Amino acid sequence: MDRRTFLRNSALGGSAAAASGLAAPAYAQGNRTLTLVTTWGRGLAGVHDSAQYCADKITALTDGALTVDLKAAGELVGAFEVFDAVTAGQADMYHAADYYFTGQHPAYQFFTSLPFGMTSQELHNWYYHRGGQGLHDELGQIFGLKSFLAGNTGAQAGGWFQKEINGPEDFQGLRMRAPGQSGEVFAKLGASVQNIPGAEVYQALSSGALDAVDWIGPWADEAAGFQEITKFYYTASAGEPGPGISLATNRTVFEELSPAHQQVIEQVSAAANSWTLALFVANNAAALGRLQQAGVRTLTFPDPVWDALGAASQEVYQEYMGDPLYKKIFDSYQTSMASSAQWIEMSEQAYSRQRDRILQM
Amino acid sequence: MDRRTFLRNSALGGSAAAASGLAAPAYAQGNRTLTLVTTWGRGLAGVHDSAQYCADKITALTDGALTVDLKAAGELVGAFEVFDAVTAGQADMYHAADYYFTGQHPAYQFFTSLPFGMTSQELHNWYYHRGGQGLHDELGQIFGLKSFLAGNTGAQAGGWFQKEINGPEDFQGLRMRAPGQSGEVFAKLGASVQNIPGAEVYQALSSGALDAVDWIGPWADEAAGFQEITKFYYTASAGEPGPGISLATNRTVFEELSPAHQQVIEQVSAAANSWTLALFVANNAAALGRLQQAGVRTLTFPDPVWDALGAASQEVYQEYMGDPLYKKIFDSYQTSMASSAQWIEMSEQAYSRQRDRILQM
Repeated sequence: MDRRTFLRNSALGGSAAAASGLAAPAYAQGNRTLTLVTTWGRGLAGVHDSAQYCADKITALTDGALTVDLKAAGELVGAFEVFDAVTAGQADMYHAADYYFTGQHPAYQFFTSLPFGMTSQELHNWYYHRGGQGLHDELGQIFGLKSFLAGNTGAQAGGWFQKEINGPEDFQGLRMRAPGQSGEVFAKLGASVQNIPGAEVYQALSSGALDAVDWIGPWADEAAGFQEITKFYYTASAGEPGPGISLATNRTVFEELSPAHQQVIEQVSAAANSWTLALFVANNAAALGRLQQAGVRTLTFPDPVWDALGAASQEVYQEYMGDPLYKKIFDSYQTSMASSAQWIEMSEQAYSRQRDRILQM
Repeated sequence: MDRRTFLRNSALGGSAAAASGLAAPAYAQGNRTLTLVTTWGRGLAGVHDSAQYCADKITALTDGALTVDLKAAGELVGAFEVFDAVTAGQADMYHAADYYFTGQHPAYQFFTSLPFGMTSQELHNWYYHRGGQGLHDELGQIFGLKSFLAGNTGAQAGGWFQKEINGPEDFQGLRMRAPGQSGEVFAKLGASVQNIPGAEVYQALSSGALDAVDWIGPWADEAAGFQEITKFYYTASAGEPGPGISLATNRTVFEELSPAHQQVIEQVSAAANSWTLALFVANNAAALGRLQQAGVRTLTFPDPVWDALGAASQEVYQEYMGDPLYKKIFDSYQTSMASSAQWIEMSEQAYSRQRDRILQM
């Protein structure tokens, strides 16, 4: 959707304040309700919690002058309709993984996670100090959105496989569930990537209709019950090393807010980064221990598989390079990642390896 | 200082609002100035920036209802006097590394960094979801403080050495500058740890009065100019793997604030974690590249040195275990670290190793 289409939709749909008979008088008294739609069901631990955190904190910090009313997936619009709902003014804000919206623009991939891309720490480095936030803003302006990173799941898991993976040839013909560009990477290795609705994935793996599932991480994976079907669990993912979550506000609505309230939305989003990442780490760590006790084998792909996934990722990027904004953001992202990776490896990661070796963690 | 001493000091010094002829009427109009003292000079990049970020954001989010007036080290009180200034009500808030205050209570160590302790991600995990924040609060209550983590420097560097380190025996008699418990660990290996004021460290290393300096990280180290003296730079530190910074408010002052304003302080602190860590990563990464171009050799200690530092760290902890609150916080900290370390190693770190290998980062 380009800016002209957005403006037309805005004119038709109106802003939330104008469209709602209740919102306009409330705003006149200095109070305003902001409708927040999300791509998460209320039962989806972690990501729904992160959305609720943002809603509650914005309400609390403004002493209710802004009251954020969270509508989970399906309560106002469907999960994947949130982007259009906010650009059209049907809702005021969305909380989602921006890579759901690569159909709107392929560059939204960068603000969630790129195969062979950034960890959470690297993403925040790029976002706050190496140009990422400005590029998120540039992308949002096309669609009439003001977006901020507002959460991170940390590194996700590689997933559940019916059989052990010994080399890249084992992906040939493998019927696999994997999301977005991560799925495109596996397809380059010959996998038959299936887009099965979340609710049907357990049954598909259980019946043998699927050979493998790249889901989320131990916390969500344990809840889904995949450990009942297979014990081969690959813990490191090439596709989603540190997915960010975004809180996006309709730009017209955002610009009507006072500077203080705009800053509240920005700061709550930044606070949600630490809080949400920590929530996932805490719960993934605990679930991993339980899965191991239940006999799950934790594995990592052999080096030739990583090599093949790395080469396939480069091929996938190339398919989007025709878009100038994708190319511009890609270059900024890769430059930042290359700069920070060496320092993190030489300091934090070198330290962690030694500590974990000595303390046997 | 125990609670009784604090109460006595409060009675003597009064709260900031009561002590200042200006603050009291301002508060009556709904506006209030909070004096923030820091342990950082205005020229100290990164940590001073983090304090200024907190001050500016609290002011902006409350639309000036709270105006935070930052006084850098020496402007109101000396760097290491900020703790007593805030507990006594001479200032309203401090921004500091809490391990400067282990003289007040040894458990303050945990809220900055412990030798062989947590990385920033692990610290936030413990703080927000495994009991850390509640324990910070319990510690603060003894002194009449309400504290929040509000920044992180990321992993610091191991430091500058006049000669290469080949084994733990090389620390015998080594004249070294290293802070706090990190210095106590080196002393166990036989180092002669010298407590030289920051401003004199360059001269001491240059003249040969010091054999080694454990300073901060590439950004600050380059500014200090150590690369002009020696080219042996150890990039991973055993002593400071992810130092947190705290924003602490006089508890009486904090409790007089509205719930919304209390939440503003809490959220800005949490936002400062992502922002400050990213600031250090961005600048350390860039400085590391420049140091390498200037001929600095980046090194890591051999395994037997790490083994010896690990054993020495355990000895250092034991010296504080007589304090029941130290022991209680130590147990919580270690349990959380042991739980999260395995998941982070199996997911994010396993991923980063493969990516850096393949992309040659």
